Amino acid sequence: MAADPLVVSVPDPEYAEALADLDGVDAIVWDMGSPHPRGSEIRLAVLPYMTSLRLADVTPGLDSLEVLQLQSAGYEHFVDGLPDGVTLCNAAGVHDASTAELALTLTLASIREIPGFVASQARSRWEPLRLRSALADRRVLVVGYGQIGRAIARRFAPFEVTVTAVASRARAGDELVPHVHGIDELPELLPQHDVVVVIVPLTGATRGLFDAPMLGRMPDGALLVNVARGAVVETDALVAECAAGRLLAAVDVTDPEPLPRDHPLWTTPGVLITPHVGGATDAMRPRAIALVRRQVQTLLSGRPVDNAVAGPLSAQQP
Amino acid sequence: MAADPLVVSVPDPEYAEALADLDGVDAIVWDMGSPHPRGSEIRLAVLPYMTSLRLADVTPGLDSLEVLQLQSAGYEHFVDGLPDGVTLCNAAGVHDASTAELALTLTLASIREIPGFVASQARSRWEPLRLRSALADRRVLVVGYGQIGRAIARRFAPFEVTVTAVASRARAGDELVPHVHGIDELPELLPQHDVVVVIVPLTGATRGLFDAPMLGRMPDGALLVNVARGAVVETDALVAECAAGRLLAAVDVTDPEPLPRDHPLWTTPGVLITPHVGGATDAMRPRAIALVRRQVQTLLSGRPVDNAVAGPLSAQQP
Repeated sequence: MAADPLVVSVPDPEYAEALADLDGVDAIVWDMGSPHPRGSEIRLAVLPYMTSLRLADVTPGLDSLEVLQLQSAGYEHFVDGLPDGVTLCNAAGVHDASTAELALTLTLASIREIPGFVASQARSRWEPLRLRSALADRRVLVVGYGQIGRAIARRFAPFEVTVTAVASRARAGDELVPHVHGIDELPELLPQHDVVVVIVPLTGATRGLFDAPMLGRMPDGALLVNVARGAVVETDALVAECAAGRLLAAVDVTDPEPLPRDHPLWTTPGVLITPHVGGATDAMRPRAIALVRRQVQTLLSGRPVDNAVAGPLSAQQP
Repeated sequence: MAADPLVVSVPDPEYAEALADLDGVDAIVWDMGSPHPRGSEIRLAVLPYMTSLRLADVTPGLDSLEVLQLQSAGYEHFVDGLPDGVTLCNAAGVHDASTAELALTLTLASIREIPGFVASQARSRWEPLRLRSALADRRVLVVGYGQIGRAIARRFAPFEVTVTAVASRARAGDELVPHVHGIDELPELLPQHDVVVVIVPLTGATRGLFDAPMLGRMPDGALLVNVARGAVVETDALVAECAAGRLLAAVDVTDPEPLPRDHPLWTTPGVLITPHVGGATDAMRPRAIALVRRQVQTLLSGRPVDNAVAGPLSAQQP
């Protein structure tokens, strides 16, 4: 009863409301635009979404700060300037539903010819009946089998397809796939799959992973879906395969990004482009609020917070 | 051993191959374009897909015919001219995967703004980052809960949505929905749902079901997906709601159909149109072949065939 409350700063009142029923928590709304009078009491601070704030401008005076919680999965811009003893947490998981949903959207839109029908609709043209393609019975390869990869596989499961998963290392399967293949098996797996969904993190090992030889192993007419990062695919090689009519592509990420107006990918046949809209949807907010609530409860109970990506509680700690 | 084989006619060799391992079956390939020399032996005849054949031209001389198997769900054109004693079977089930898949495609494409991105891509324009809409957390109402309705609900289930089902009469639920509501509850259910997927058969009771008052009960910004028949929705009322920016629509069927070039639906904002492509995909063929194989096995075992829609084995028999 007598313990000091856990002071948490949140970027807007909706977060504060979501914490209101937790005993021992004092949630203050702070957008970090200027110093907060109770800054020295804050132990967990939640940054605004899509912020250009720099930690060096925000953290002075936060003398009790233990945890900085981001609302993005990316955290590279926040590692510099992280005060000693403060743990940085990203928002891994918050964008999973939205990104996985876009992977299915891109797959279905491409296979069921939505771009062509949109063009026909613009010309008030009813296309004649013929037998078209469907997703059902296709063999789907999910390359990258972390949280988002699993969320993608879960959404593909009821579509009467075969789903195969690839991760950095082979391991036992789960309720969705009998086995997770290692990335070294990718060259042998590609020829057997009609849809390849890429959701690996961009690292030294995955940069340019889908180069001309690797794309060349995909069967004729196969579809490459990229919801990872543009640089995982060699754009020139992808343009060449699609321009030749050999592959289809549906990509939410490109290299470079934004895609310049004169880039050939815009006009390559069989390519559907969305402008990196995978995660930034209204599905994000309730999941971000739920994450903050979980982190506050974890801190109250004295356990280490989740999603630590830098600082004392992070695995990357030297 | 001594029994006469069951003579079955199939429209192409792939069907014959699928029956080759069944003892006691003699599958002959016949496209029905001209009389077959063994016509009088055929007990089950499978019609070609997308055929304009008339039964009166096909059936003379088929003296042993017991079952006519269609490859379409629609059978209205084949009831007239059905010989006495012959059971007509449709292909219910064969198009379920393809149609359910298109319902998801239309929903996702509309909510995730694919038509807008296709238009931006045509202008080589990378749209700026902003918070967009997602399917996750939406409340989905499936109106029509037969085989295709269930296939649609099954595909929505992993998308972190709430699915509610409506059928002609209220009944107990299944593994996908806790309860199936009756169509009389539709006016009360509509205001609580963000996505309404229509997959009812066109009958006297469903023609014009979604008229202006019914559409008016959908909440602002809600999406109507029609994969049933165009006439289930009053097109003028739908155009008015979408033109006013109050509703979105994604429709595979229209009234009239094909949609005339000067029809206002083509250019109404927020409307995505596909030209009745729900069922006619390559997902159909393996399912049609599997249905024929099941029907042949059923006939071999002396049980009544499935999917009887007219003739002695049909429930519609007077």
